[in-house]
Parts: sequence; C-alpha cells; structure tokens
Amino acid sequence: MAAAHEMEIRVRYQETDGQRRVHHSNFLTYFEMGRTEMLRSYGHSYRDFEDAGLFMVVSDVQISYRAPAEYDDLLLLRTRVDKVGAAHIKHAYEVIRGTQILVTGSTTVVCVDAEGKIRRLPEWMLG
Amino acid sequence: MAAAHEMEIRVRYQETDGQRRVHHSNFLTYFEMGRTEMLRSYGHSYRDFEDAGLFMVVSDVQISYRAPAEYDDLLLLRTRVDKVGAAHIKHAYEVIRGTQILVTGSTTVVCVDAEGKIRRLPEWMLG
Amino acid sequence: MAAAHEMEIRVRYQETDGQRRVHHSNFLTYFEMGRTEMLRSYGHSYRDFEDAGLFMVVSDVQISYRAPAEYDDLLLLRTRVDKVGAAHIKHAYEVIRGTQILVTGSTTVVCVDAEGKIRRLPEWMLG
Amino acid sequence: MAAAHEMEIRVRYQETDGQRRVHHSNFLTYFEMGRTEMLRSYGHSYRDFEDAGLFMVVSDVQISYRAPAEYDDLLLLRTRVDKVGAAHIKHAYEVIRGTQILVTGSTTVVCVDAEGKIRRLPEWMLG
Repeated sequence: MAAAHEMEIRVRYQETDGQRRVHHSNFLTYFEMGRTEMLRSYGHSYRDFEDAGLFMVVSDVQISYRAPAEYDDLLLLRTRVDKVGAAHIKHAYEVIRGTQILVTGSTTVVCVDAEGKIRRLPEWMLG
Repeated sequence: MAAAHEMEIRVRYQETDGQRRVHHSNFLTYFEMGRTEMLRSYGHSYRDFEDAGLFMVVSDVQISYRAPAEYDDLLLLRTRVDKVGAAHIKHAYEVIRGTQILVTGSTTVVCVDAEGKIRRLPEWMLG
Repeated sequence: MAAAHEMEIRVRYQETDGQRRVHHSNFLTYFEMGRTEMLRSYGHSYRDFEDAGLFMVVSDVQISYRAPAEYDDLLLLRTRVDKVGAAHIKHAYEVIRGTQILVTGSTTVVCVDAEGKIRRLPEWMLG
Repeated sequence: MAAAHEMEIRVRYQETDGQRRVHHSNFLTYFEMGRTEMLRSYGHSYRDFEDAGLFMVVSDVQISYRAPAEYDDLLLLRTRVDKVGAAHIKHAYEVIRGTQILVTGSTTVVCVDAEGKIRRLPEWMLG
C-alpha cells in the first residue's frame, strides 16, 4: 500500500457554509472516503472489515487549510499511507483543485474490536 | 403524550449553506431532537429504547419551508404527537422565530426490532 | 427537461447513523445532487445560476422510506421534473439499489433573487 | 479572554455513525460552537462580526480522540484562548463526559475580509 490513491470529489451544496466555502469539517469526511476507496482499489472493502468484527477508529487528526474550496468544485483527493504499525495506520492527504493544493492533512486510525480493545491489523491489510 | 413539547435550538454555523440559510436538510435533525427531548420530558430515554432492542425508524416525512432561518438564530421547536398507531407515531412540528413560523413538518416513525421487523410500541410509550 | 436523469451515489460512512443505516436527512442532500447533475446534463450549472443573482430555495419536501440504505451501498438516484411553473419546479426522485426502490420523494424549489423576492425562472431553464 | 468557557452539548442521533459513536468530524462543529458561545459570553456576537465584513476562517486543526462519545451523552466542552496574534487566534478544547476527557483539540482561526485578505483582529476582540 505504498503508492498514492487518487479520486475525484464534486463539492455538494450542503457541504458549503455561510461563507460559501466548504465547511472545514467536511474534509474529514473526504479523507474517510479516500481511505475507503484506496482500500477498494486493493481489492478490499471496509464493509467486510466491519462485518468481520473489526473497526478502524480515528485517534488523531491534523489539517491545514491553505485556500477555500467552493460549491461545485471538482476536487482531486490524493491519499497515501504514511506509516503502518501493528495496530494502526497513518494516512496523509492532499486536496487539489487544478494545480493548487487547497488542503493537506493526516489521520491515524487504530484497529479495534467490537469491545473497543486494540487489535492487530489483519495480514491482508499489511500486504 | 397529547401536549406539545417545546425546546430552543441555536443555529450552528455548520448548519448554514452558501445561501447563509440553514440548509433544508437540517430540519429533519431538529425534528429528531424534538422527538428525543419530548420523550425525555415524559421520563423516558430513546437510548434505553434502543438498548432494549427496539428502534424507531422514519418512514415518512413532509416539510414546508416558509421563511429562512439564519446562523445564530435562536429557534423554538414545537413538537406534538399527531397520531399513535399500534406500531407507529406521527409527529407534527413547528419551527418558530419570535412570532413567525418558519417551517412546519410532520414525520411518521415506525417501531422495529434489530432485524427490521415491525413491532408493537411498548406500553409505556402509549401511556 | 422531460426525461429522467440518473446518477450513482456511493454511501459515505459519515452518512450512516447508530442504526448503521443512512440517516434519513441525507436523502435531501442526495436529491439536491440530483438536481445539480440533471441541470449539468442539460449544459447548465447551478453555480452560474447563483453567480447571476438567482437562487433556488426549497419550499416543500416529501419523502417515503421503504427500506434502509447502508454504508458503501452503490445507489442509483433517478431524478425527473414533475411540474414546471413560472417560478418553481417540482422534482420527483427514486433511490434504487439493484432492483429495489428504497426511497421515493419530491421537492419543490422556488426561484428567488438575493433579496428573497420570487422571480420568474430564466428562459433557458424552461427550454 | 484568558479564562476558559464551558458549555454543555447533548449528542444528537444524526451525529452518530455506524459504530454508534459520534462521527469524528462533528467535534469540529462542537469546537466552532465553543468559539461562538465564548465570544457571546464576552458580550459579542460572531454574526455581528460577519455583518461588519470580517470573517474568521479556520487555518489549522489538530484533534486527539481518546474515548468515544455516544448518542444522548451530555458532554462538557471547555474552550480557551491559547494564543492571540495580530490576525489570528489559537483556541484549545477539551470534550469531557463526567470526569473523563474524551477528546482534546486545537484550532487556529484567521481574520479575513470578504475578498479573503488577512486583516487585523478588531480591538474589541483583543480586549
């Protein structure tokens, strides 16, 4: 899982706020979509992951906003794996419009079971 | 459960959209808060309801928007029970600012179990 | 604008609620996406519409929920124009997974200017 | 603006996700509420601020999630000013349930005008 995954996201009207920009909280949802689709591009589904009794919970988040995204913008989200531990994965993200990087960020997700106990990442996720 | 329940809701910035109004989808969240708080005012908790294996799912929604609500408005949400069946409840709502009714609506919620099968409303809910 | 417009929507994790279903309020956001993309398929952009000082505001909403949509479902949203007036458009929607209709709904949007006064729909929108 | 501001937040059903926890993106909305209400407690309104042509835009965010918040939890949000510059304010936040700190975070907001140019914070905000 070394390479970067890229996907397009069309900004929804509902995601904008009174400043006509994408409300800053929505980028966490975009990042989550990046993780889901990157996993799918490797032939896996996060839904199956949960159906198997494991969950990825977000433990840390960092975001820098350089320029606003607006309604109807077609954004490029670039997701890559930054670091993999026994039970956690750190991802890094860039949100790009044209040639401009609007937002950068990173998240750490931790693998837990239904009781919230930390669990090793399944083999297939590390491959 | 005949009388009306009233609660105040302060509009959040995140709830506004590019028109600087509350995005119309948020009123369904407000209505849901009204149902929760009306239930609490009768000494019950919807959380306990779910912990007991029952769920209220929304089957029908109708909303009329007369005037916009804006960021930081202090709204009054009036919730009342319109009709109670064996397995469903129909609520009616008014969202008011000062003396002006901004939004009216109604929802029907149906009682189901964890498998999604329709179940009779518990006695205490009808009382 | 007689024919139906169809688009796919992948359910986001953020859109689910504690019942593991798409929270019922999100279908209003889906419907809004359907209106935007239908307009685009006719060569127009709602962003240009707002940049020209006109706004479409939602005045009425009706939704019926028949079956739940879940995380990661790939939904088909079918949008069609039901009725066009001098200043408003009524749309009808179906949300479909496979061969099953999960949700149906309708909305009425009204054309207003920046002051909120009702305005005739521009010619190109009626064409 | 040295002291901490405290407010209670009742978790909404819509804010939970398929893991029955508050979706991690909602804490940014909670932090925003904290900033609004802290400002109000000093006799000011962020709405007036925007009506005067100034905007606070979020430039940086950091969040650490220690334990999940759940539907219907009554949370305490503690907001304090960490640092004030000529054009920006850094806030720090704690989200607490009972005696347990669930989430900590910080944000930096920058004062801009309608064109997005960075502007000095008004005197009354520094006082």
